[in-house]
Amino acid sequence: MPQSSKIEILRHSLSHLLAAAVLEMFSKSQLGVGPAITDGFYHDFDIKNGEINPETLPRIEQKMKELIKRNLLFKKTTQPIDKALKEAKDKGLEYRVELIEDLKKDGAKTVSFYQTGDFINLCKGPHLKSTGEINFKAFKLTKIAGAYWRGDEKNTMLTRIYGVAFAAEKELKDYLKQQTEAEKRDHRKLGKELDLFVFSDLVGKGLPLLTPKGAIIRQELERFIIDEETKRGYLRTYTPDLAKVELYKKSGHWQHYKDNMYPSMNIDGEDYVLRPMTCPHQFMIYASRPRSYRELPLRYAEIAKQYRKEQSGELSGLIRVMAFSLADAHIICRPDQVEQEFKGVVELVQYVMKTLGIDDYWYRFSKWNPEDKKKYVNKPKEWKETQAQMKKILDKLKVKYVEVEGEAAFYGPKLDIQLRNINGKEDTAFTIQIDFDLPEKFDLTYVDEQGNKKRPMAIHRSSIGCLERTMAFLIEHYAGAFPVWLSPVQAQVVPVSQKFNAYAKKVVQQLKDKNIRTELNDSDETLGKKIRQGELQKIPYLLIVGEKEQKAKSVAVRDRKKGDLGPVKIDKFIEKIKEEVERKQ
Amino acid sequence: MPQSSKIEILRHSLSHLLAAAVLEMFSKSQLGVGPAITDGFYHDFDIKNGEINPETLPRIEQKMKELIKRNLLFKKTTQPIDKALKEAKDKGLEYRVELIEDLKKDGAKTVSFYQTGDFINLCKGPHLKSTGEINFKAFKLTKIAGAYWRGDEKNTMLTRIYGVAFAAEKELKDYLKQQTEAEKRDHRKLGKELDLFVFSDLVGKGLPLLTPKGAIIRQELERFIIDEETKRGYLRTYTPDLAKVELYKKSGHWQHYKDNMYPSMNIDGEDYVLRPMTCPHQFMIYASRPRSYRELPLRYAEIAKQYRKEQSGELSGLIRVMAFSLADAHIICRPDQVEQEFKGVVELVQYVMKTLGIDDYWYRFSKWNPEDKKKYVNKPKEWKETQAQMKKILDKLKVKYVEVEGEAAFYGPKLDIQLRNINGKEDTAFTIQIDFDLPEKFDLTYVDEQGNKKRPMAIHRSSIGCLERTMAFLIEHYAGAFPVWLSPVQAQVVPVSQKFNAYAKKVVQQLKDKNIRTELNDSDETLGKKIRQGELQKIPYLLIVGEKEQKAKSVAVRDRKKGDLGPVKIDKFIEKIKEEVERKQ
Repeated sequence: MPQSSKIEILRHSLSHLLAAAVLEMFSKSQLGVGPAITDGFYHDFDIKNGEINPETLPRIEQKMKELIKRNLLFKKTTQPIDKALKEAKDKGLEYRVELIEDLKKDGAKTVSFYQTGDFINLCKGPHLKSTGEINFKAFKLTKIAGAYWRGDEKNTMLTRIYGVAFAAEKELKDYLKQQTEAEKRDHRKLGKELDLFVFSDLVGKGLPLLTPKGAIIRQELERFIIDEETKRGYLRTYTPDLAKVELYKKSGHWQHYKDNMYPSMNIDGEDYVLRPMTCPHQFMIYASRPRSYRELPLRYAEIAKQYRKEQSGELSGLIRVMAFSLADAHIICRPDQVEQEFKGVVELVQYVMKTLGIDDYWYRFSKWNPEDKKKYVNKPKEWKETQAQMKKILDKLKVKYVEVEGEAAFYGPKLDIQLRNINGKEDTAFTIQIDFDLPEKFDLTYVDEQGNKKRPMAIHRSSIGCLERTMAFLIEHYAGAFPVWLSPVQAQVVPVSQKFNAYAKKVVQQLKDKNIRTELNDSDETLGKKIRQGELQKIPYLLIVGEKEQKAKSVAVRDRKKGDLGPVKIDKFIEKIKEEVERKQ
Repeated sequence: MPQSSKIEILRHSLSHLLAAAVLEMFSKSQLGVGPAITDGFYHDFDIKNGEINPETLPRIEQKMKELIKRNLLFKKTTQPIDKALKEAKDKGLEYRVELIEDLKKDGAKTVSFYQTGDFINLCKGPHLKSTGEINFKAFKLTKIAGAYWRGDEKNTMLTRIYGVAFAAEKELKDYLKQQTEAEKRDHRKLGKELDLFVFSDLVGKGLPLLTPKGAIIRQELERFIIDEETKRGYLRTYTPDLAKVELYKKSGHWQHYKDNMYPSMNIDGEDYVLRPMTCPHQFMIYASRPRSYRELPLRYAEIAKQYRKEQSGELSGLIRVMAFSLADAHIICRPDQVEQEFKGVVELVQYVMKTLGIDDYWYRFSKWNPEDKKKYVNKPKEWKETQAQMKKILDKLKVKYVEVEGEAAFYGPKLDIQLRNINGKEDTAFTIQIDFDLPEKFDLTYVDEQGNKKRPMAIHRSSIGCLERTMAFLIEHYAGAFPVWLSPVQAQVVPVSQKFNAYAKKVVQQLKDKNIRTELNDSDETLGKKIRQGELQKIPYLLIVGEKEQKAKSVAVRDRKKGDLGPVKIDKFIEKIKEEVERKQ
């Protein structure tokens, strides 16, 4: 077991105090476990449903503070395991009985307890010396959740109380501020407020519906990446979202990836299944006619829908969905082209990240796990060779990366581009994979300069990732205040009063004619309220129009970031905003 | 029974002669049926497999011509039905026995036979007076196919010989010429020759894969229609391609349309199904928040994948597929807006047709069949009202249409825009539907000026149809020689010899930089062969470059339609082709 850090010991001790407080306040409660976790701690309780609720938390917190002020010592005692087991049984502490029995199975001869005041708890420690070491202004109970005993849904549902804790009060304040910010930026919340996407119980969990405003963002991202890929020599394909199960048996998905796939559908005696990946489909295009070395590399790209089963509990907003659209591509190339092509993909990904304004990302070199025969194709020699090749390329590219075993694709190693979302959860945004396996399985070939049949290599890659997930990242990254080119509404015209509605409409039309996404706010509200509405919708430009503007054929520009920019001729404004869109600002 | 036309009688008589010829040549054959059909006739034979093959046809044709020259009379005789039945049984003519038994069941007392020379056949007639009336230069046996006795696959497979026949030799020649042309234009054949799409046995029948060249056409069509719809006030959505079965139970698809739907998939205890239509999905977006009369009409558009089961035998190229992408939209509007919106859709469809260069289309007003309770929602009052409304609108728009019963959607009447493909088969390209039913089923509402909840109407429509099918029409319409804006390759640079490859590459890059889809043909072939290759690929412009062009920074332009245009400065050519693309030429 790794040594506990000072802050972990503090958090663990707070978990102990939480249990002490709850037992003192609700004597009928039985204890589950209570560890330190990232940023804090929790403890589980078997307590009457509803007895503890969000309103109870401040009272429990108060009781914990009292215990801290009493500066109680953490006293450790040790007991022979059988004695402890008998005592627990006699007291009817069923959870403790289970825990001790497990320790016994693992060969423990003794168990340890920690006591503060009258409260004593089975615990391996370590703890602080005394509660006085805790800064009682630097912790906070945050929420209540249900949790099955030992995480098994066949067991009793316990009540879990979470807390956060730090060494200093300032750290707690910073943390809570950051949390509030994260909540404000949460793409699920902003998605609703800005009307970007909705869910429907009738359609199903994990199946988002993009509303017109969300659809604009998606369409801009799609056109951007398609045009950029075309510039870089990619060719587009449209392949079906389903195929015979046979195809995935040939590719190996059925053997290695079936748990993630949808159930098959029998149509006219033939089994079809929604695709979990695009690779076999694009390989079928490659294989549709003989290929010469002169044609390679062939870079097939597609915005491809893919279907993977997710645990229902894992589904979340646009980040984890039941069906997603991947900006996918498969580069089929000669072995001597792999390095150059891999480099090209890394450069494309870096360009995309820069364009999207994201710089907080890192690389993960995801490798095979030789022990996992179910997940990976059994070609140790090829695995070793390809991983060595990939490492060499990465080192040559001077890309910094972390190495992780057991995260490769079943057919080859991956370079994952990792992002952290606003709640701190890490996710793979894009991935670049070298595949030594599928070209062989599908017998892909090309004829070399000497007229011999040769086996090409394949690179699987994404450029802008899964569009749903990338949208979620962008919503959180920009807190909904998208750059102009991605903004669903780029400008809103706001007449100072009804009198200027006609002029406002004319301005809207002029902007629309120039393909600027423009709205009119001609509601009966006051100007102040209308401006506030526009700001809440995070529209880049509000264009206020009244008497003066009407006379001068101008608009008073209110910039989302810089505030009032004063009166600007309509033509000038159009020029300015079009240039920003052009420059993807 | 309708009276047979003169040409039908001629064709029927040829079918009789075909039977006579085959029986004379292959005495062990038994006869199936032999009617006149569009453009010709056929006859079925129970004959040893392979005995008749395409090489046999000219010999049979020759035999028929002999019979014609002998100017044989068609002699009609009548027999009491039981006598005829006994004779057929005695002779072991099992098919004839079945036919006579059926006539008997229908109450016939006698049956008729027609005889020419020694050949006599059960036949209701009518026939010509004598074979001399047939122009033996105006018919031709065309092909052999298998056909189950009485169309039932449980029965014996018979050999069917097809022929075409006309009154005059010129008509036959014209017909055969048109057939050859149709074959040349067949999108399945051109799709292969021009490498636009492929099929894969591993992926499945009816699931085309668009190759890079086909994908360009599709992408151009998509962007064209999306931009055009946006100009006309449509809003885009992205909704999932599957949903809970529950959604389609609510919409009524499950009750009225299940036979066309894919099988459902059970995921985590919930049944999902691939969508046959987009309407309920877009309605869920409408229903996601309260709507005011001021927001209407809302025009939700989407390039939506849809999944409908087709009979495996019906699947054909890009025309009938297992999954297709519809340029779909649903307009939700106030009842007083229906007429204006309907008109807007008709205008859009007309604009699309004009842009695509198609003028041979017509309108079909598809109405409900009151008797078919399974197919249509049972709301006779609403059916009558909406059909009357649609008729009024159509008459007002001065749109000429044919009326057909039993072709409506289950929720309302349709205006179908009909096209005929190159083989003469009629297909619905686009459709506009007025829906009185689904807004009620989904309880869609809006708040009117007085603050009262009201029920909107819905218009379901397609603008450019199903992209796969529209592509098929366009391939056949243009015989693969697409207008420049749709051409996968817009220009090909052809150096007169290897010496000018470097200059040719420079020209290619200059054009590519201006987003002109350009290829280089730097193969070792002769100039003549390279030009022929380019012509076969139906590339709009071949740009020949040699010494003179290199010096003058020009290209020698060879126009697909107009031939040699002589030398043109590169900049001038770029200007010209960009303007053509802009004008969608």
